[in-house]
Amino acid sequence: MKIHSIILATLAFIAVSCNSASDKAESTTTKTEVISTDPLPSWKEGSNKSAIIDFVNQVIEQGGANYVQPAERIATFDNDGTLWCEQPVAQLEFVAYQIKKMAISHPEWKDVQPYKSILEGDQEYLVNDYMNNHGKELMNLVVTTHSGMTLDKFNADIQEFMSATAHPKYNKKYTETVYQPMIELLKYLRNNDFKTYICSGGGNDFMRVIAEETYGIVPENVIGSFAMNSFEQVNGSWTIVKGKDNIFMNDALTKPAAIEQRIGRIPIFVAGNVRSGGDIGQLTYGNTNKLPNFQLLINHDDDIREFAYAEKDNASLNAAEQGQWHVVSMKNDWLKIFSFDN
Amino acid sequence: MKIHSIILATLAFIAVSCNSASDKAESTTTKTEVISTDPLPSWKEGSNKSAIIDFVNQVIEQGGANYVQPAERIATFDNDGTLWCEQPVAQLEFVAYQIKKMAISHPEWKDVQPYKSILEGDQEYLVNDYMNNHGKELMNLVVTTHSGMTLDKFNADIQEFMSATAHPKYNKKYTETVYQPMIELLKYLRNNDFKTYICSGGGNDFMRVIAEETYGIVPENVIGSFAMNSFEQVNGSWTIVKGKDNIFMNDALTKPAAIEQRIGRIPIFVAGNVRSGGDIGQLTYGNTNKLPNFQLLINHDDDIREFAYAEKDNASLNAAEQGQWHVVSMKNDWLKIFSFDN
Repeated sequence: MKIHSIILATLAFIAVSCNSASDKAESTTTKTEVISTDPLPSWKEGSNKSAIIDFVNQVIEQGGANYVQPAERIATFDNDGTLWCEQPVAQLEFVAYQIKKMAISHPEWKDVQPYKSILEGDQEYLVNDYMNNHGKELMNLVVTTHSGMTLDKFNADIQEFMSATAHPKYNKKYTETVYQPMIELLKYLRNNDFKTYICSGGGNDFMRVIAEETYGIVPENVIGSFAMNSFEQVNGSWTIVKGKDNIFMNDALTKPAAIEQRIGRIPIFVAGNVRSGGDIGQLTYGNTNKLPNFQLLINHDDDIREFAYAEKDNASLNAAEQGQWHVVSMKNDWLKIFSFDN
Repeated sequence: MKIHSIILATLAFIAVSCNSASDKAESTTTKTEVISTDPLPSWKEGSNKSAIIDFVNQVIEQGGANYVQPAERIATFDNDGTLWCEQPVAQLEFVAYQIKKMAISHPEWKDVQPYKSILEGDQEYLVNDYMNNHGKELMNLVVTTHSGMTLDKFNADIQEFMSATAHPKYNKKYTETVYQPMIELLKYLRNNDFKTYICSGGGNDFMRVIAEETYGIVPENVIGSFAMNSFEQVNGSWTIVKGKDNIFMNDALTKPAAIEQRIGRIPIFVAGNVRSGGDIGQLTYGNTNKLPNFQLLINHDDDIREFAYAEKDNASLNAAEQGQWHVVSMKNDWLKIFSFDN
């Protein structure tokens, strides 16, 4: 069982500060609004913005040397740190939120790890768990909060969490801490007949609750980590029940395998971000496409408007240099990060 | 590991006769040809044909009580016995074809089961394996022929098989033994903004090789059995390699779980067939949809034009009666079965 990504995500779960503001992510749009206006108004003019626009113009030009038929215009996007803020990781905040709720009927948890540390807000315990125990305790928390209930109940719990909580730095709902330039990019690609997918370490079912409204990405285009669910009778009615076995962690080198299982085509556009090396796999997979292809790697270098963090081994940036991927500086390439930025 | 469906499929793999004729399955079409002409010309006028057309007309009627928005118009179809002939099951014919080719570099196989029986054409061995050994040997054959090679090589092998072989009764390529009425139904649904999916016990990667050209079903809409593949360097190049572990058999009660994993919405239209009870799960899942929904169950009762066979326990027909599903008699409801029929 691979628990790499959820563990790395935990590190993000820890260091967090506080701030303010408000707006709302857009969903799909019609095909008429594109041509004459700037499709990427939150992107600063420069080599990255023009590379994206040049690429799209080339693949849609019928008869052109780089034309790609619509059925092959597959684009995959990581979620945490690529489409929305990953400081903290919303799904791990959800885990803590659920554990605190569930603790009411589990009085024994206050003395039992890993529940104790969550209930006491002692995040150091989880860091130690990650360092010394390969994150097994953390995975227990995920299983406790993500399995055994009906899918309908799980979805309702996520909706409650999304309504009841706010991002600690911005004091905005998590669904508002999405990157405005990436929302524009998703729309721009769809307006040019790309099929946009999420391919992320987040839960398949977790991300679906927010993906359609927040990103305009339909449930069948959400590719995430999963345990196979089951179809059972609950109180006399057939329904889907959340599973906990054969967990597939969608991260690093397993992302291409998941894309193959789900889509069956190599994407021509892949976007990921620097943090854990978790997107090197899917970006490299995109590079193997015989069709024209484009790789985008987002670098978190804006500690004022967002967060600045790097990878210990610099693997993503090294791979970007080798693969000639387009590295986005959030600080320099984006006029706005969030829709609520001035 | 569930091996139920592949085992039941094996029974089909055995009893086969011989005959002749020629034509070609159609793929997707444009949206303009529908309205004025009969969308289902190979369907005899009657209650099943009118029920299908009534259902489609209702879900597309904007403002109507049964209107369903396009994003929710999900249709899932079993493959073997629902979209094409399952006597014999083409994928098991492929297994035998590959074993015979691979035997050249495995001289030891002529004395080792289960290879020996395949090489000698002794199918009784597999029946006994199914009866007494839960089909473990049969699964070994599937693993031997479906894993360890690159996906590109696997796909090329299937293409070679499809070109080199013919259906023993009709002397047609397997891709020509598709049911003309179902090809019309798939097109009719897509022309009305349904998304058509295969949900079948056949292999995810196996079916994709033929699905787009044969049915107009794109790779991302093929839901089948699978082992998770891996992304590896082979001869210095990154590529997908076929896996053999954590096999997920997409059959019976696991079909709803696979639909949930892949699509994340309950279908409003489900089609399966009588043989093993393997489609009761997805048909029942369709029944749980709060939106208007339609279930179609195909009964193989035409031993002249195709094959006549029933289920030992009659479970599918019993479930159809209970769920008020629409049961299609191939003999009485279909004017043509194959495009090459007169």
